[in-house]
Amino acid sequence: MAALPPPISPTSPPSPASPLYQRLASHYRQAIHAGVLAPGERMPSVRKLTLLHQVSLSTALEVCHRLEDEGLLAAKPRSGYFVQQPRRARLVPLREPEIGTALEDAPGPLDRTHYRGIHQKVSDYVAQCERASLVTNLAGAYGAPEAYPAQALHRAATRVLRQKPELLVSAVNAQGDVNLRTVLARRALGAGMRFTAEDIVVTYGCTEALNIALRAVTSPGDTVAVESPTYYGLLQIIESLGLRALEIPTSPATGLSIEALELAFRTHPAIKAVVAIPNLHNPLGCVMPDDHKARLVALCEGAGIPLIEDDTYGALADGDTQLQTAKAWDQTGNVIYCCSLRKTLAPGLRLGWVAGGRWHARIQMLKYAQSRYNEALAQMTAAEYMQTSAYDRHILRLRQQLKTQREQMAEAIATYFPAGTRLNLPQGSMMLWVELPDHRPVQPVFSAALKLGIRVAPGTLFSNSARYDHFMRICCGDPHSKAVDAALRQLAGLLAVKTRSR
Amino acid sequence: MAALPPPISPTSPPSPASPLYQRLASHYRQAIHAGVLAPGERMPSVRKLTLLHQVSLSTALEVCHRLEDEGLLAAKPRSGYFVQQPRRARLVPLREPEIGTALEDAPGPLDRTHYRGIHQKVSDYVAQCERASLVTNLAGAYGAPEAYPAQALHRAATRVLRQKPELLVSAVNAQGDVNLRTVLARRALGAGMRFTAEDIVVTYGCTEALNIALRAVTSPGDTVAVESPTYYGLLQIIESLGLRALEIPTSPATGLSIEALELAFRTHPAIKAVVAIPNLHNPLGCVMPDDHKARLVALCEGAGIPLIEDDTYGALADGDTQLQTAKAWDQTGNVIYCCSLRKTLAPGLRLGWVAGGRWHARIQMLKYAQSRYNEALAQMTAAEYMQTSAYDRHILRLRQQLKTQREQMAEAIATYFPAGTRLNLPQGSMMLWVELPDHRPVQPVFSAALKLGIRVAPGTLFSNSARYDHFMRICCGDPHSKAVDAALRQLAGLLAVKTRSR
Repeated sequence: MAALPPPISPTSPPSPASPLYQRLASHYRQAIHAGVLAPGERMPSVRKLTLLHQVSLSTALEVCHRLEDEGLLAAKPRSGYFVQQPRRARLVPLREPEIGTALEDAPGPLDRTHYRGIHQKVSDYVAQCERASLVTNLAGAYGAPEAYPAQALHRAATRVLRQKPELLVSAVNAQGDVNLRTVLARRALGAGMRFTAEDIVVTYGCTEALNIALRAVTSPGDTVAVESPTYYGLLQIIESLGLRALEIPTSPATGLSIEALELAFRTHPAIKAVVAIPNLHNPLGCVMPDDHKARLVALCEGAGIPLIEDDTYGALADGDTQLQTAKAWDQTGNVIYCCSLRKTLAPGLRLGWVAGGRWHARIQMLKYAQSRYNEALAQMTAAEYMQTSAYDRHILRLRQQLKTQREQMAEAIATYFPAGTRLNLPQGSMMLWVELPDHRPVQPVFSAALKLGIRVAPGTLFSNSARYDHFMRICCGDPHSKAVDAALRQLAGLLAVKTRSR
Repeated sequence: MAALPPPISPTSPPSPASPLYQRLASHYRQAIHAGVLAPGERMPSVRKLTLLHQVSLSTALEVCHRLEDEGLLAAKPRSGYFVQQPRRARLVPLREPEIGTALEDAPGPLDRTHYRGIHQKVSDYVAQCERASLVTNLAGAYGAPEAYPAQALHRAATRVLRQKPELLVSAVNAQGDVNLRTVLARRALGAGMRFTAEDIVVTYGCTEALNIALRAVTSPGDTVAVESPTYYGLLQIIESLGLRALEIPTSPATGLSIEALELAFRTHPAIKAVVAIPNLHNPLGCVMPDDHKARLVALCEGAGIPLIEDDTYGALADGDTQLQTAKAWDQTGNVIYCCSLRKTLAPGLRLGWVAGGRWHARIQMLKYAQSRYNEALAQMTAAEYMQTSAYDRHILRLRQQLKTQREQMAEAIATYFPAGTRLNLPQGSMMLWVELPDHRPVQPVFSAALKLGIRVAPGTLFSNSARYDHFMRICCGDPHSKAVDAALRQLAGLLAVKTRSR
């Protein structure tokens, strides 16, 4: 057993006025952080604590429970408490949004001819990124190449080319390879959706799917309700189509606020569509509870407003959890389901798909008018592989890997970033949404990081407002290498430099 | 020498009242069509004709000249006239449009919510086609698979995959593979255009290029001037973007009427873009003379209206002619150049590209918002092959093959279709624009042909008006097999059945 900790120091953070259990918990917390109590070591027993510190049994228990809740201790049956790896030590959860006030930001007038707004933000971002030389990319929301089945896809592509020597030179005349659509329909069953191959249109990524879905149900000038924050690509699509985004308060824990959306429906009659990411939201990482999904679907159906569901990351929940989609509750075809194989199967294939519900025919026609049918090789390659159980094994491996990387990165952020940093640890996918302390503006940090070759996605991009200008999205698609760890230390160093607060 | 033709029969078409030379020409024409005078055989000499038919020397000469003009006879110096393959026997040129009247059809109000208009036409067309089983496809505007370098592309794709084992699983982060953009820029030099790789954005086919080009320079409600007739895909894009097409009279010989466009600019202030296909127009097949191109570019520049050039078929002119594009005359960046590799290199790769001139940055951003960057394999495969001289040899072979097929098809149509059928023989590409006799409506013919497994593109599709409801586009991408010939005979048979005229 380790040496017993020194008596409570007067410099420890909780003031002497704070309850005894808090002071004692802080005392042991610091000991664990300082390595005085190292991971794997036994915590003094509850009984011993009562003796050492002259506290009641309930106070000693409270201390242990508190440290257990923080992930610093773990109870082993009949053996007492043991010190854990000090992860999530300062992982302070994100705050919940205020529902009433946020909706007052009605979307402003739109000047399409000068492409201000999100286009400008994204343009500036892309241009800045292109000027800098890249050492460590923490901005790309996809796994490292090694995380995907390169060899198997290579073999599948070669096999397809051998079996169909005329594939590259033959016209394509279908809304997607039928084998791919069949396997997509089959695999959607697990997420609670019943499709046939005929219900599915294959697209160039989820980006094209979202474009077409929005074009199917809106006209320029319409308002589209989205989560706040939300994926900048979606805001860009909305702006480029001459639509207006109405950002709905969204909980970092449970996703889109159904109450706020209901309020928005009552107060904003120009809303013609809702786009939501119920599963493993980008950038929040949260999963909407199933009963919220049911309410969301019912609310949209009742209001006669189509719901477009972006399920890009939904297959990447930790462990063997298969998340149910909002579409799973759709009885009337009012939900347009958009998905991607880019994050799950292969970032290089550029495959997505859309199941358009009652707008299927219109979506089919818009896909045809916008880019004709997808080329066949990528689809047939994907179908070959996704028909096998190797795909199931790949997905489980990918989930495990992303979980490990996510936890490592969260721990590093919690360890290196200054106090006041907030983030949640999502239960899947590959991104962390980090709130900087003291409303520290992210833009100078982003620019300084770029100069060091480190790329993150500034929170600025995830809203048309300035609401997230003190956030950043950090992705953990790459293994948590020394380079990644060093980059996070450097980011922390930049945050330690005092910048002018807003 | 063949037996001399029988004396003029009283049942021959020209009435006895018609001039003697006409009656005599008709007599020999029929003999040639009937094979009594076979190709390669000598025509009775002029002197012999005077003796046989008791006509003057000038009448006999007139007969020979007439049949020579029709392509039935060819003069050989000092040997007299010989019977030719009876091609283009009844290839009556298409009529020129009337400029004044056509422009009165202002584009009507647009109801996007119900997708009437061209979407409906194309939907009906696609649905009808899908219901029918296909025997002979005369509607597809691309070559047969054998016309493209399947093996070489297959090898190139395999090589690319071997050299870049992580290609399919790596994110794509550029506006197109730089090697492909470089070779496209280099090959554009021959058409009079100077690009660098940086000027080019790779797209999913010319369809996506046109979508993005129009989105870059117009807003919903704007008017876009197009040729009449024009490619239905373009009309569909225009409609799907909430734009209005103004159809400008277009000569089947020289393309878009510059005078009519000038008039339209003066009378239709809502015109915000012009889309033209100056080289090997779809469906007319005509090539705009270079001085027209120069005037077109200057007119648009002077009016401050961007010109979008669709050059999908421009590389497919007969022989070793390299057509100059309108873009070649662009000094100010006012021309957005859209092109495709689908017809020239490989229908299955789905590659197109756009050089946006002064709208380049906007086009880059719209491409990003619409479908992100194109996947890499198809691009690298195309680049591998297009860098070699094998590509030049392929294009020359393809042009020769299409020329042969086009002439064979024109001859068959001229031979089988009823009198009054009109068509021009284009100097490149793979389509014939056929005017049916007596304003015969094409739709019943199209439907009846589908029942026989024959697919053509009804003229109905090529305009928002009913102006081309008695036309059809027939493509000759496939070798002129017995099946193709039989299909044309069957089409002719359907046309022989009297249908109600409009």
